[in-house]
Amino acid sequence: MRIGILTIGNELMNGRIADTNASFIAREANQQGWTVEAIMSVSDDFTAIKDRLDYLLSLTDAIICSGGLGPTADDITTEAIAKAFGLPLYMDENVLNYIKDIFTKFNFRWVENNVKQAMFPQGAEVIPNARGTAPGFCLPINGKLIFVVPGVPAEAKLMITNGVFPALRKHFPQEELYIVKQTIRTFGLGEAAVDDRVKDIDFNSLGVSIGFYPVFPENHIVLIAQSNHREEAQKNLQQAQDEVTARLQNYIFAFGEQTLEEVIAGILTAKKLTIAVAESCTGGMISSRLTDVSGSSNYLERGLVTYSNAAKISMLGVPAEIIEKHGAVSEETARLMAEGVRKLAGTNLGLASTGIAGPTGGNKEKPVGTVYLAVADSKQTVCRHYAYRWDRKRNKEVFTEAALFLLKNFLEGKHS
Amino acid sequence: MRIGILTIGNELMNGRIADTNASFIAREANQQGWTVEAIMSVSDDFTAIKDRLDYLLSLTDAIICSGGLGPTADDITTEAIAKAFGLPLYMDENVLNYIKDIFTKFNFRWVENNVKQAMFPQGAEVIPNARGTAPGFCLPINGKLIFVVPGVPAEAKLMITNGVFPALRKHFPQEELYIVKQTIRTFGLGEAAVDDRVKDIDFNSLGVSIGFYPVFPENHIVLIAQSNHREEAQKNLQQAQDEVTARLQNYIFAFGEQTLEEVIAGILTAKKLTIAVAESCTGGMISSRLTDVSGSSNYLERGLVTYSNAAKISMLGVPAEIIEKHGAVSEETARLMAEGVRKLAGTNLGLASTGIAGPTGGNKEKPVGTVYLAVADSKQTVCRHYAYRWDRKRNKEVFTEAALFLLKNFLEGKHS
Repeated sequence: MRIGILTIGNELMNGRIADTNASFIAREANQQGWTVEAIMSVSDDFTAIKDRLDYLLSLTDAIICSGGLGPTADDITTEAIAKAFGLPLYMDENVLNYIKDIFTKFNFRWVENNVKQAMFPQGAEVIPNARGTAPGFCLPINGKLIFVVPGVPAEAKLMITNGVFPALRKHFPQEELYIVKQTIRTFGLGEAAVDDRVKDIDFNSLGVSIGFYPVFPENHIVLIAQSNHREEAQKNLQQAQDEVTARLQNYIFAFGEQTLEEVIAGILTAKKLTIAVAESCTGGMISSRLTDVSGSSNYLERGLVTYSNAAKISMLGVPAEIIEKHGAVSEETARLMAEGVRKLAGTNLGLASTGIAGPTGGNKEKPVGTVYLAVADSKQTVCRHYAYRWDRKRNKEVFTEAALFLLKNFLEGKHS
Repeated sequence: MRIGILTIGNELMNGRIADTNASFIAREANQQGWTVEAIMSVSDDFTAIKDRLDYLLSLTDAIICSGGLGPTADDITTEAIAKAFGLPLYMDENVLNYIKDIFTKFNFRWVENNVKQAMFPQGAEVIPNARGTAPGFCLPINGKLIFVVPGVPAEAKLMITNGVFPALRKHFPQEELYIVKQTIRTFGLGEAAVDDRVKDIDFNSLGVSIGFYPVFPENHIVLIAQSNHREEAQKNLQQAQDEVTARLQNYIFAFGEQTLEEVIAGILTAKKLTIAVAESCTGGMISSRLTDVSGSSNYLERGLVTYSNAAKISMLGVPAEIIEKHGAVSEETARLMAEGVRKLAGTNLGLASTGIAGPTGGNKEKPVGTVYLAVADSKQTVCRHYAYRWDRKRNKEVFTEAALFLLKNFLEGKHS
């Protein structure tokens, strides 16, 4: 079945509010196995609403509209739809009483324009709104269906799930379709390189689709398998996942929706390891990401942002001569920072960053984007050097991601 | 002039990503005095893209498309547009060399599918992309214009402002209209409360429009004045700004596009002051935001993420008895952390946070969202206590913002 989505409101057309209802409806409809054919936004305007509805009816089997059901003068959706199809409006007494009851219950002052919310085009069926005063409706037009829900996301979401989708399934009964998906999260390869490595896989014959989603600085891959048989969908998805995994092995850090810091949290907790962090160029971002996970106080003992050389020397015990000879941005300094913070905090692990986020501070030998990352335990210290090319903020983000990725590989013994 | 917006990508149609480009383009186009007639999203599909373009051309004078310019197989926008209008593709050697230069410069491995990004429909003019490899283009069709920019928001935004809009203004010259705008950045009041405080101002008679843009945890207000006379636009804008300022005085931290950390950087630099930070619940985020500003090494001496009590005691000198008696999350601890880190680092200022980001760790007396923030100099220590109600990540963000806001007010002598 083909779905059209129409979000209605001047606040969308002047960019004051970014539409979130459309992506919610699209995501949920996809998971029902339906195709979202078109997504559109339109202003609170009679002619424009009629025009978009006509166009969407030519493309789809059902249209889900949101917005413009409130009591104020610029809320014209119900009237515009009635007018578009030459239907009179009727008042639903049950709905009117329901709205009046809410006003009484919460001691709101009744304003007459609220009656508007109890008016519907002839032939429409009311969809209740458990979270607000404005109900929605379902209007059959030439064997197709037009649904309308309010623009308020919390109200719209509940009504889509509990009112719109059941009505759609009833009106357009379909073969049982099983849809399973898997997200594969990677770091360290560009989008084109990821694509290049998996392009020989015959996803079509598996009935699997692949999508690439850059979420800076990561690249996520989403595999979706569809079949009338649950086991087949599962089997095909697993096979596609195995093929992708074989080609991207060293760049994958998670299957599913786990973040990199959550993966690390899992390993540190399972192995009962503690860690301390010493940061220069990342300015606290590594510690901040590690503490995005609830329970991180169990493994993160402390973090130091040793921005000045004095702090590197006095707190981490990096000898002044080393900094003078090799520079604060150097493999030697990174290693001593990781070892120093580990010793200071008495933790199992130490993690350190030193680099040049930019835009100033670079030179020919060590340009902006240069970073040295080190991780140390009681047996060894591993250091990596990378050269990125972003602006200050993105450099900090990619330095941080690379540090966490190095830590994860170190913890899994994959760093050699 | 009427503008159509078409965002292209399967990730939009399956709801995996919420569209942010459309609202950006709509907002900016409105500020130019243009009408956004239609906003649409479409999948990476030849037939659907042609169909939507035909429809949008019937409604508008110019279409701005974003998405589908990448190097991978599912990026088909350029080819689809060429096909829709029966145009052959040509390769732009300059663009190809530009892309190859990026690969050489940053030592990326060249993959042949990147050539795609140098292909354009005949008659198209290239729009450079200063932030990525895929340029956009402008294609004239029957006196109308079709623009295409990449889907990556950071790249799209810059190209819209610097490439698309100048070309539109040139192609559709209009009466000289002076549009001036001012952004007022606030923290500490909800959107409804901001709205309530300024609702008595008669913006209409000034010819000024007001927009509210929540950028969590901040609320930004944008005032736009339009006039055929530059001086009048400026005068009206200034008057509107003065009225808003009078009502929101204590919540405003910047006029214009400065971030809170940039405002602080300006004050610290002007006053030649240095600072050190001690963080608990914010986990490094305060230091990280301070170091988002280039040149922050001139004032940020160090930051400590004293996540464990041991770190608070040994590094900051917070007495164990204080933590035992009042708790790590308390005014007493916050004050001693700010004073301790200032002393340890030998800086003019110390800034500290201690709180409960959640979702665990709260209790009836100190629920999740509780935070104590302190700032100290040689003369005094000021502490503030707040209770927020967000999830872990947002709590960290709002704690951090509140800490920086307190620091700014302290530096300006407005903390009493």
